Amino acid sequence: MTSTTATTKSTPVITSAELLKHWQDHRTLSRKVLATFPEKDLYEFSIGGMRTYNVLAGEMLGLASAGINGVATGKWETTPALDHFNESIHITTKAEFLAAWDEVTEQIEVLWPQIPADRFQQTEAAFGQYPNTIINTILYLVDNEIHHRGQGYVYLRALGIEPPAFWDRF
Amino acid sequence: MTSTTATTKSTPVITSAELLKHWQDHRTLSRKVLATFPEKDLYEFSIGGMRTYNVLAGEMLGLASAGINGVATGKWETTPALDHFNESIHITTKAEFLAAWDEVTEQIEVLWPQIPADRFQQTEAAFGQYPNTIINTILYLVDNEIHHRGQGYVYLRALGIEPPAFWDRF
Repeated sequence: MTSTTATTKSTPVITSAELLKHWQDHRTLSRKVLATFPEKDLYEFSIGGMRTYNVLAGEMLGLASAGINGVATGKWETTPALDHFNESIHITTKAEFLAAWDEVTEQIEVLWPQIPADRFQQTEAAFGQYPNTIINTILYLVDNEIHHRGQGYVYLRALGIEPPAFWDRF
Repeated sequence: MTSTTATTKSTPVITSAELLKHWQDHRTLSRKVLATFPEKDLYEFSIGGMRTYNVLAGEMLGLASAGINGVATGKWETTPALDHFNESIHITTKAEFLAAWDEVTEQIEVLWPQIPADRFQQTEAAFGQYPNTIINTILYLVDNEIHHRGQGYVYLRALGIEPPAFWDRF
Protein backbone atom coordinates (compact mmCIF):
# COMPACT_ATOMS: atom_id res chain seq x y z
CA MET A 1 0.00 0.00 0.00
CA THR A 2 1.28 3.42 -0.96
CA SER A 3 -0.73 5.57 1.42
CA THR A 4 -2.01 5.55 4.94
CA THR A 5 -4.70 8.16 4.25
CA ALA A 6 -7.88 6.50 5.46
CA THR A 7 -11.03 6.30 3.38
CA THR A 8 -13.73 8.82 4.27
CA LYS A 9 -17.45 8.25 3.81
CA SER A 10 -17.43 10.36 0.66
CA THR A 11 -14.38 8.75 -0.98
CA PRO A 12 -15.52 7.77 -4.49
CA VAL A 13 -14.89 4.08 -5.10
CA ILE A 14 -16.65 3.30 -8.40
CA THR A 15 -16.73 5.37 -11.58
CA SER A 16 -19.45 5.47 -14.19
CA ALA A 17 -17.35 3.45 -16.65
CA GLU A 18 -16.62 0.79 -14.03
CA LEU A 19 -20.29 0.41 -13.12
CA LEU A 20 -21.31 0.12 -16.77
CA LYS A 21 -18.68 -2.59 -17.30
CA HIS A 22 -19.81 -4.35 -14.11
CA TRP A 23 -23.41 -4.44 -15.33
CA GLN A 24 -22.58 -5.52 -18.87
CA ASP A 25 -20.15 -8.21 -17.70
CA HIS A 26 -22.91 -9.67 -15.53
CA ARG A 27 -25.30 -9.51 -18.47
CA THR A 28 -22.73 -11.43 -20.55
CA LEU A 29 -22.78 -14.24 -18.01
CA SER A 30 -26.58 -14.12 -17.77
CA ARG A 31 -26.79 -14.49 -21.55
CA LYS A 32 -24.58 -17.59 -21.32
CA VAL A 33 -26.83 -19.09 -18.66
CA LEU A 34 -29.90 -18.38 -20.79
CA ALA A 35 -28.21 -19.98 -23.81
CA THR A 36 -27.35 -23.06 -21.73
CA PHE A 37 -31.00 -23.89 -21.01
CA PRO A 38 -32.58 -26.48 -23.30
CA GLU A 39 -35.49 -24.73 -25.03
CA LYS A 40 -38.12 -27.02 -23.54
CA ASP A 41 -36.79 -26.65 -20.00
CA LEU A 42 -36.50 -22.89 -20.36
CA TYR A 43 -40.28 -22.76 -20.66
CA GLU A 44 -41.34 -25.74 -18.57
CA PHE A 45 -38.90 -26.58 -15.78
CA SER A 46 -39.16 -25.23 -12.27
CA ILE A 47 -38.57 -26.22 -8.65
CA GLY A 48 -40.78 -25.71 -5.61
CA GLY A 49 -43.51 -23.83 -7.46
CA MET A 50 -41.12 -21.10 -8.59
CA ARG A 51 -41.33 -19.34 -11.92
CA THR A 52 -39.87 -21.01 -14.99
CA TYR A 53 -36.57 -19.57 -16.19
CA ASN A 54 -38.10 -17.85 -19.22
CA VAL A 55 -40.10 -15.72 -16.79
CA LEU A 56 -37.05 -14.96 -14.65
CA ALA A 57 -34.92 -14.12 -17.70
CA GLY A 58 -37.79 -12.08 -19.10
CA GLU A 59 -37.87 -10.09 -15.89
CA MET A 60 -34.11 -9.42 -16.16
CA LEU A 61 -34.49 -8.32 -19.76
CA GLY A 62 -37.54 -6.11 -19.29
CA LEU A 63 -36.19 -4.43 -16.15
CA ALA A 64 -32.82 -3.77 -17.81
CA SER A 65 -34.45 -2.21 -20.85
CA ALA A 66 -37.06 -0.09 -19.06
CA GLY A 67 -34.48 0.54 -16.33
CA ILE A 68 -31.80 2.08 -18.53
CA ASN A 69 -34.48 4.15 -20.27
CA GLY A 70 -35.70 5.42 -16.92
CA VAL A 71 -32.20 6.06 -15.61
CA ALA A 72 -31.17 8.00 -18.70
CA THR A 73 -34.43 9.76 -19.61
CA GLY A 74 -36.90 9.51 -16.71
CA LYS A 75 -39.25 7.38 -18.85
CA TRP A 76 -39.43 3.93 -17.26
CA GLU A 77 -40.70 2.20 -20.38
CA THR A 78 -39.61 -0.38 -22.89
CA THR A 79 -41.05 -2.01 -25.99
CA PRO A 80 -44.28 -4.02 -25.50
CA ALA A 81 -42.47 -7.35 -26.01
CA LEU A 82 -40.14 -6.61 -23.08
CA ASP A 83 -42.70 -5.05 -20.76
CA HIS A 84 -42.13 -6.98 -17.54
CA PHE A 85 -45.16 -5.38 -15.91
CA ASN A 86 -47.53 -6.73 -18.56
CA GLU A 87 -47.81 -10.42 -17.77
CA SER A 88 -49.71 -11.23 -20.96
CA ILE A 89 -46.68 -10.59 -23.13
CA HIS A 90 -43.87 -13.11 -23.54
CA ILE A 91 -41.00 -14.00 -25.80
CA THR A 92 -41.77 -17.46 -27.09
CA THR A 93 -38.41 -18.85 -28.29
CA LYS A 94 -34.85 -18.92 -26.97
CA ALA A 95 -33.55 -17.45 -30.23
CA GLU A 96 -35.83 -14.43 -29.81
CA PHE A 97 -34.68 -14.13 -26.21
CA LEU A 98 -31.01 -14.03 -27.16
CA ALA A 99 -31.64 -11.51 -29.94
CA ALA A 100 -33.57 -9.30 -27.52
CA TRP A 101 -30.75 -9.68 -25.00
CA ASP A 102 -28.26 -8.33 -27.53
CA GLU A 103 -30.57 -5.44 -28.40
CA VAL A 104 -30.78 -4.42 -24.76
CA THR A 105 -26.99 -4.72 -24.42
CA GLU A 106 -26.68 -2.21 -27.26
CA GLN A 107 -29.43 -0.04 -25.78
CA ILE A 108 -27.50 0.19 -22.50
CA GLU A 109 -24.28 1.09 -24.33
CA VAL A 110 -26.05 3.89 -26.21
CA LEU A 111 -28.03 5.35 -23.31
CA TRP A 112 -25.45 5.07 -20.51
CA PRO A 113 -23.24 7.96 -21.72
CA GLN A 114 -26.37 10.13 -21.93
CA ILE A 115 -27.09 9.83 -18.20
CA PRO A 116 -26.74 13.31 -16.70
CA ALA A 117 -23.78 13.41 -14.31
CA ASP A 118 -25.88 14.50 -11.34
CA ARG A 119 -28.55 11.90 -12.03
CA PHE A 120 -27.09 9.05 -9.95
CA GLN A 121 -27.84 10.72 -6.63
CA GLN A 122 -31.37 11.83 -7.56
CA THR A 123 -34.34 10.10 -5.94
CA GLU A 124 -37.13 8.95 -8.23
CA ALA A 125 -39.80 6.24 -8.28
CA ALA A 126 -38.18 3.56 -10.44
CA PHE A 127 -40.68 2.09 -12.91
CA GLY A 128 -43.13 4.59 -11.43
CA GLN A 129 -43.36 2.40 -8.34
CA TYR A 130 -40.20 2.12 -6.24
CA PRO A 131 -38.76 5.35 -4.80
CA ASN A 132 -34.98 5.09 -4.62
CA THR A 133 -31.84 6.91 -5.65
CA ILE A 134 -30.91 6.20 -9.25
CA ILE A 135 -27.63 4.58 -8.19
CA ASN A 136 -29.47 2.22 -5.86
CA THR A 137 -31.99 1.39 -8.57
CA ILE A 138 -29.12 0.46 -10.91
CA LEU A 139 -27.52 -1.70 -8.21
CA TYR A 140 -30.92 -3.30 -7.57
CA LEU A 141 -31.25 -4.24 -11.24
CA VAL A 142 -27.82 -5.88 -11.27
CA ASP A 143 -28.39 -7.64 -7.94
CA ASN A 144 -31.83 -8.90 -8.98
CA GLU A 145 -30.28 -10.40 -12.10
CA ILE A 146 -27.53 -12.14 -10.10
CA HIS A 147 -30.18 -13.44 -7.67
CA HIS A 148 -32.42 -14.98 -10.31
CA ARG A 149 -29.49 -16.21 -12.39
CA GLY A 150 -28.22 -18.05 -9.31
CA GLN A 151 -31.61 -19.73 -9.17
CA GLY A 152 -31.14 -20.71 -12.82
CA TYR A 153 -27.91 -22.43 -11.80
CA VAL A 154 -29.92 -24.70 -9.49
CA TYR A 155 -32.43 -25.44 -12.25
CA LEU A 156 -29.57 -26.41 -14.58
CA ARG A 157 -27.87 -28.57 -11.94
CA ALA A 158 -31.20 -30.27 -11.21
CA LEU A 159 -31.45 -30.98 -14.95
CA GLY A 160 -27.97 -32.52 -14.90
CA ILE A 161 -26.46 -29.64 -16.90
CA GLU A 162 -23.26 -27.85 -15.87
CA PRO A 163 -23.79 -24.06 -15.83
CA PRO A 164 -21.16 -21.53 -16.93
CA ALA A 165 -18.62 -20.62 -14.23
CA PHE A 166 -19.72 -17.71 -12.03
CA TRP A 167 -16.55 -15.78 -12.83
CA ASP A 168 -16.89 -16.29 -16.61
CA ARG A 169 -18.27 -12.87 -17.61
CA PHE A 170 -16.20 -12.36 -20.77
CA MET B 1 -33.58 16.26 -13.98
CA THR B 2 -31.70 19.39 -13.06
CA SER B 3 -28.75 19.15 -15.44
CA THR B 4 -27.95 18.09 -18.96
CA THR B 5 -24.25 17.61 -18.28
CA ALA B 6 -23.59 14.08 -19.47
CA THR B 7 -21.80 11.48 -17.40
CA THR B 8 -18.15 10.91 -18.27
CA LYS B 9 -16.31 7.63 -17.81
CA SER B 10 -14.66 8.97 -14.66
CA THR B 11 -17.81 10.37 -13.03
CA PRO B 12 -17.87 8.88 -9.51
CA VAL B 13 -21.16 7.11 -8.89
CA ILE B 14 -20.68 5.28 -5.57
CA THR B 15 -19.00 6.50 -2.40
CA SER B 16 -17.24 4.43 0.20
CA ALA B 17 -20.12 4.84 2.68
CA GLU B 18 -22.67 3.77 0.05
CA LEU B 19 -20.71 0.65 -0.85
CA LEU B 20 -20.30 -0.32 2.81
CA LYS B 21 -24.06 0.06 3.34
CA HIS B 22 -24.74 -1.91 0.16
CA TRP B 23 -22.59 -4.79 1.39
CA GLN B 24 -23.95 -4.79 4.95
CA ASP B 25 -27.56 -4.55 3.75
CA HIS B 26 -27.02 -7.63 1.60
CA ARG B 27 -25.42 -9.39 4.56
CA THR B 28 -28.50 -8.55 6.63
CA LEU B 29 -30.70 -10.34 4.10
CA SER B 30 -28.26 -13.25 3.87
CA ARG B 31 -28.41 -13.63 7.64
CA LYS B 32 -32.21 -13.82 7.44
CA VAL B 33 -32.01 -16.52 4.77
CA LEU B 34 -29.55 -18.49 6.91
CA ALA B 35 -31.85 -18.13 9.92
CA THR B 36 -34.80 -19.38 7.87
CA PHE B 37 -33.22 -22.77 7.15
CA PRO B 38 -34.27 -25.60 9.45
CA GLU B 39 -31.10 -26.78 11.17
CA LYS B 40 -31.26 -30.28 9.69
CA ASP B 41 -31.81 -29.02 6.15
CA LEU B 42 -29.03 -26.47 6.50
CA TYR B 43 -26.60 -29.35 6.80
CA GLU B 44 -28.28 -32.05 4.72
CA PHE B 45 -30.46 -30.66 1.94
CA SER B 46 -29.22 -30.03 -1.58
CA ILE B 47 -30.39 -30.20 -5.20
CA GLY B 48 -28.61 -31.63 -8.23
CA GLY B 49 -25.45 -32.62 -6.39
CA MET B 50 -24.79 -29.04 -5.26
CA ARG B 51 -23.25 -28.11 -1.93
CA THR B 52 -25.49 -27.97 1.13
CA TYR B 53 -26.37 -24.48 2.32
CA ASN B 54 -24.08 -24.63 5.34
CA VAL B 55 -21.17 -24.90 2.92
CA LEU B 56 -22.45 -22.03 0.77
CA ALA B 57 -23.10 -19.82 3.80
CA GLY B 58 -19.72 -20.83 5.21
CA GLU B 59 -18.12 -19.66 1.99
CA MET B 60 -19.91 -16.29 2.25
CA LEU B 61 -18.80 -15.91 5.84
CA GLY B 62 -15.18 -16.94 5.37
CA LEU B 63 -14.69 -14.85 2.24
CA ALA B 64 -16.25 -11.78 3.87
CA SER B 65 -14.01 -12.10 6.92
CA ALA B 66 -10.74 -12.84 5.13
CA GLY B 67 -11.82 -10.43 2.39
CA ILE B 68 -12.27 -7.36 4.59
CA ASN B 69 -8.99 -8.20 6.31
CA GLY B 70 -7.25 -8.37 2.95
CA VAL B 71 -8.88 -5.24 1.64
CA ALA B 72 -7.99 -3.21 4.72
CA THR B 73 -4.59 -4.69 5.62
CA GLY B 74 -3.28 -6.81 2.73
CA LYS B 75 -3.51 -9.96 4.89
CA TRP B 76 -6.12 -12.23 3.31
CA GLU B 77 -6.68 -14.28 6.44
CA THR B 78 -9.37 -15.01 8.96
CA THR B 79 -9.78 -17.14 12.06
CA PRO B 80 -9.36 -20.92 11.59
CA ALA B 81 -13.11 -21.55 12.12
CA LEU B 82 -13.96 -19.26 9.18
CA ASP B 83 -11.14 -20.32 6.85
CA HIS B 84 -13.02 -21.09 3.64
CA PHE B 85 -9.91 -22.49 2.01
CA ASN B 86 -9.50 -25.18 4.67
CA GLU B 87 -12.24 -27.67 3.92
CA SER B 88 -11.70 -29.65 7.10
CA ILE B 89 -13.07 -26.87 9.25
CA HIS B 90 -16.78 -26.21 9.66
CA ILE B 91 -19.24 -24.49 11.92
CA THR B 92 -21.50 -27.23 13.22
CA THR B 93 -24.66 -25.45 14.42
CA LYS B 94 -26.90 -22.69 13.09
CA ALA B 95 -26.55 -20.75 16.34
CA GLU B 96 -22.77 -20.69 15.92
CA PHE B 97 -23.24 -19.61 12.31
CA LEU B 98 -25.43 -16.67 13.27
CA ALA B 99 -23.06 -15.60 16.04
CA ALA B 100 -20.13 -15.74 13.61
CA TRP B 101 -22.17 -13.78 11.08
CA ASP B 102 -22.64 -10.97 13.61
CA GLU B 103 -18.94 -11.00 14.48
CA VAL B 104 -18.01 -10.55 10.83
CA THR B 105 -20.58 -7.76 10.49
CA GLU B 106 -18.79 -5.95 13.31
CA GLN B 107 -15.38 -6.78 11.81
CA ILE B 108 -16.41 -5.13 8.54
CA GLU B 109 -17.68 -2.03 10.37
CA VAL B 110 -14.38 -1.70 12.24
CA LEU B 111 -12.02 -2.36 9.34
CA TRP B 112 -13.83 -0.51 6.54
CA PRO B 113 -12.91 3.03 7.73
CA GLN B 114 -9.27 1.89 7.93
CA ILE B 115 -9.07 1.13 4.20
CA PRO B 116 -6.54 3.55 2.68
CA ALA B 117 -8.30 5.94 0.29
CA ASP B 118 -6.15 4.95 -2.69
CA ARG B 119 -6.55 1.24 -1.97
CA PHE B 120 -9.71 0.62 -4.04
CA GLN B 121 -7.95 1.03 -7.36
CA GLN B 122 -4.89 -1.06 -6.44
CA THR B 123 -4.43 -4.47 -8.04
CA GLU B 124 -3.61 -7.37 -5.75
CA ALA B 125 -4.08 -11.14 -5.66
CA ALA B 126 -7.18 -11.51 -3.50
CA PHE B 127 -6.79 -14.37 -1.01
CA GLY B 128 -3.30 -14.76 -2.52
CA GLN B 129 -4.91 -16.31 -5.59
CA TYR B 130 -7.08 -14.00 -7.69
CA PRO B 131 -5.44 -10.88 -9.16
CA ASN B 132 -7.98 -8.06 -9.34
CA THR B 133 -8.49 -4.47 -8.31
CA ILE B 134 -9.61 -4.15 -4.72
CA ILE B 135 -12.91 -2.57 -5.78
CA ASN B 136 -13.63 -5.49 -8.10
CA THR B 137 -12.72 -7.97 -5.37
CA ILE B 138 -15.23 -6.28 -3.05
CA LEU B 139 -17.91 -6.37 -5.73
CA TYR B 140 -17.09 -10.03 -6.36
CA LEU B 141 -17.62 -10.86 -2.69
CA VAL B 142 -21.03 -9.18 -2.67
CA ASP B 143 -22.06 -10.74 -5.98
CA ASN B 144 -20.92 -14.20 -4.93
CA GLU B 145 -23.04 -13.89 -1.81
CA ILE B 146 -26.12 -12.81 -3.81
CA HIS B 147 -25.51 -15.71 -6.22
CA HIS B 148 -25.34 -18.42 -3.59
CA ARG B 149 -28.09 -16.86 -1.49
CA GLY B 150 -30.34 -17.01 -4.58
CA GLN B 151 -29.58 -20.71 -4.70
CA GLY B 152 -30.62 -20.93 -1.05
CA TYR B 153 -33.98 -19.46 -2.06
CA VAL B 154 -34.52 -22.44 -4.36
CA TYR B 155 -33.55 -24.86 -1.59
CA LEU B 156 -36.08 -23.20 0.73
CA ARG B 157 -38.82 -23.22 -1.91
CA ALA B 158 -38.12 -26.88 -2.64
CA LEU B 159 -38.51 -27.50 1.10
CA GLY B 160 -41.87 -25.72 1.05
CA ILE B 161 -40.53 -22.74 3.04
CA GLU B 162 -41.10 -19.13 2.01
CA PRO B 163 -37.79 -17.21 1.96
CA PRO B 164 -37.42 -13.56 3.04
CA ALA B 165 -38.29 -11.02 0.34
CA PHE B 166 -35.33 -10.10 -1.86
CA TRP B 167 -35.75 -6.39 -1.07
CA ASP B 168 -35.92 -6.97 2.72
CA ARG B 169 -32.40 -5.94 3.72
CA PHE B 170 -33.27 -3.99 6.85
